[in-house]
Amino acid sequence: MQKTDVLVIGGGPAGIIVAVTAKVNYPDKKVTLVRTEEQVLVPCGIPYIFGTLEDSSKNIVPDAALTNAGVELKVDEVVVVDRAKKVASLADGGSIQFDKLVFATGSTAYMPQWLKGADLENVFTVQKNKVYLDKARQKLQELDKIAIVGAGFIGVEIADELAKIGKKVTIVEKLPSVLPLAFDKEITSDAGTLLSSRGVTLKTGVGVKEVLGNGTVTGVLLENGEELEAEAIILAMGYRPNSTLAKKTGLRIGHKNAIWVDEYMRTDDSDVFAIGDCAERKSFITRKLTEIMLASTAVSEARIAGANLYKLQVVKTFSGTIGIFSTAIGDTAFGSAGLTEWQAKQEGFDIVSATFESVDKHPGTLPGAHKQRVKLIAARKSGVLIGGQAMGGNTAGEVMNIIGLAIQTRTTVDNLLTAQIGTHPLLTSAPTTYPIVKAAEKIVAMRS
Amino acid sequence: MQKTDVLVIGGGPAGIIVAVTAKVNYPDKKVTLVRTEEQVLVPCGIPYIFGTLEDSSKNIVPDAALTNAGVELKVDEVVVVDRAKKVASLADGGSIQFDKLVFATGSTAYMPQWLKGADLENVFTVQKNKVYLDKARQKLQELDKIAIVGAGFIGVEIADELAKIGKKVTIVEKLPSVLPLAFDKEITSDAGTLLSSRGVTLKTGVGVKEVLGNGTVTGVLLENGEELEAEAIILAMGYRPNSTLAKKTGLRIGHKNAIWVDEYMRTDDSDVFAIGDCAERKSFITRKLTEIMLASTAVSEARIAGANLYKLQVVKTFSGTIGIFSTAIGDTAFGSAGLTEWQAKQEGFDIVSATFESVDKHPGTLPGAHKQRVKLIAARKSGVLIGGQAMGGNTAGEVMNIIGLAIQTRTTVDNLLTAQIGTHPLLTSAPTTYPIVKAAEKIVAMRS
Repeated sequence: MQKTDVLVIGGGPAGIIVAVTAKVNYPDKKVTLVRTEEQVLVPCGIPYIFGTLEDSSKNIVPDAALTNAGVELKVDEVVVVDRAKKVASLADGGSIQFDKLVFATGSTAYMPQWLKGADLENVFTVQKNKVYLDKARQKLQELDKIAIVGAGFIGVEIADELAKIGKKVTIVEKLPSVLPLAFDKEITSDAGTLLSSRGVTLKTGVGVKEVLGNGTVTGVLLENGEELEAEAIILAMGYRPNSTLAKKTGLRIGHKNAIWVDEYMRTDDSDVFAIGDCAERKSFITRKLTEIMLASTAVSEARIAGANLYKLQVVKTFSGTIGIFSTAIGDTAFGSAGLTEWQAKQEGFDIVSATFESVDKHPGTLPGAHKQRVKLIAARKSGVLIGGQAMGGNTAGEVMNIIGLAIQTRTTVDNLLTAQIGTHPLLTSAPTTYPIVKAAEKIVAMRS
Repeated sequence: MQKTDVLVIGGGPAGIIVAVTAKVNYPDKKVTLVRTEEQVLVPCGIPYIFGTLEDSSKNIVPDAALTNAGVELKVDEVVVVDRAKKVASLADGGSIQFDKLVFATGSTAYMPQWLKGADLENVFTVQKNKVYLDKARQKLQELDKIAIVGAGFIGVEIADELAKIGKKVTIVEKLPSVLPLAFDKEITSDAGTLLSSRGVTLKTGVGVKEVLGNGTVTGVLLENGEELEAEAIILAMGYRPNSTLAKKTGLRIGHKNAIWVDEYMRTDDSDVFAIGDCAERKSFITRKLTEIMLASTAVSEARIAGANLYKLQVVKTFSGTIGIFSTAIGDTAFGSAGLTEWQAKQEGFDIVSATFESVDKHPGTLPGAHKQRVKLIAARKSGVLIGGQAMGGNTAGEVMNIIGLAIQTRTTVDNLLTAQIGTHPLLTSAPTTYPIVKAAEKIVAMRS
């Protein structure tokens, strides 16, 4: 039997980061990471293997981060965990004795069992698996008409990439718009218009009833009776926590099948941690449990778990996800963090929100200048920022991270308004029209 | 005699922002802005009129921000201020009665009186004046060999722009590197190499002794005896506060000829405010007086003054400049805020610093990916961030603003390390290698 101090199950971003962080914090401990995949895909890069990247081999997380840090890497599957004996049994028959165990088992693409025809040939999900996706990609290359079910950011990104290489793409979304959960409707409306202008057909506000075909997909039947012709279907309907192994070993399971954890990322067994998509989490703002799954959340949890494995460090607890992410349609980026205006209202927050639009270079006559828009949502009385959305050129992803840091540091709109912001003609909006500051200014004026 | 409630002298970013902020905070007050220029140049856009923008008319601050806000605009010069009578006399013979007065008179390009030959034809400074710069630009177009004295960001940007349109450019800097004040030497060294590779000749560590010529410039004599041939000289040796009018009206003058102000941006006359380059300021970190002049500082001061004109608002005081700015050489951006490592050491701070380099897209195989490097400087005991530098593609300007907000909110490296950062293949570095987080991680490891 092999022995390790820390055993990490799962090789995605959360697994990599917790393993490396464990070595940084506890250099004398042996850290072993077991994963099932020979090669690990960059998860957020997956949509781009269908177009821009041309090939999934350009979308591999290098193992150097692990091996350079001194983490032992093992490609195998943990099939049973005996927590009493602290032994993990592997599919190849071996076993590993551990002291601390971390579940970073991730999530699986949701496959709707209720959807008739979902088992037909050329129905794909967006699994985080190179072998599966390489096959899917090859098939899609040969086909022309593709329907995507689900207009979250994965669905939207794949739609845009497939349209870019000349496919006839239709995206079907049950909710009234594309990107419906993370943005307010004026922004989803712009995203929809942009996606249409790039050749993607949108069917929003209508769900899928059945996948049509005989052996192989021929189309999809919508809830309103409409039939769409399609040679392939991509189901981009979200992900579910991989918690089966945790459940089998008797760990407490929480919200929506995720592994229960505390703010140090410990499960109900204090020698066992869980992080990333497989773990339960709260919202930073609402303090309610949420199903948000994002790399930004996962790696933050991983760094916290890695630091707390042997000694709890009170400066490092996870205070809930702010749900920060960004996406792109063509050369327009969209980012979101915290609550949207509609979510805030629905949750009963007393808020003020404002939007400001400018240009991402200054003067706006500079070549390559792109519109940049920021929406901020703040608590009315305290002025604390609780959400924001950004839209713009390729700098909008980092603009979103400014807003994200402001939310996490509980910065008020008064402080944002007078914040010192570095501006440069080629790199940012002007000092006089910087959208985060100007949106904060509008909120301050509305509060007083 | 005309009457106004608030009189602003100066039409640059500080003047515009204080006028607009005054209207937002005190909508019933009449706000008048007097400036000498018919058209106001975007100050940070000035270097780009020599190349990218082709023409200064593309680098004008639109007056719409003022007029839309209801600010009265007057092109004239305030020649005398009688503070007892609260009257400003204008060059055209008129006068304006005011209740509150704001000096936003800016700064003037430094002209070294000690430099022999500085009065020759084709010796230029970088004045923030369209008429002057249009003439300079026209002259420079006709000439070939240009020497720039001073390798601060203005000198560097103009050098890069002139090289871009095919001029033979030499930049002379007395200090040992380009951009010597705002960056540590490993970064100035990369900036120098980059500037050289773009065709600019660097002469660093040597000052200018004399401008040579007979009527018109023919060259420049360096302190080491070397003679450079040059048909034009651009003196980019910094700026000095425009405080003559304030001095004449008896206001207290502070550090290095700047107008003394308190944290509400009031001068020693509580009805008179001063902001921007003409006003004195402290460093946010060292708490010492500093000569830093930046739009980021000026507009923050302007928003604070605008809010405090009639009623002091304790949430809005100026806590000192973090000296945040960014610049670009070709497609590589450089940003800085707070203290550099050498400044921190010189000022006696007990610090830990670390650098991390990654790529600004992920995977790095994506087209257009650019190296991205972040250096962070933190107080050893508290872990509070006191400085940072960023280098990268065009997103590095906003990356710098994340660091700037972290400095202003006194965020610790522990908190940065576990911050949730939105990442996207086309927009940012990877969640596992995000340079701000990784540099914070290195510092945390070094502190423990």
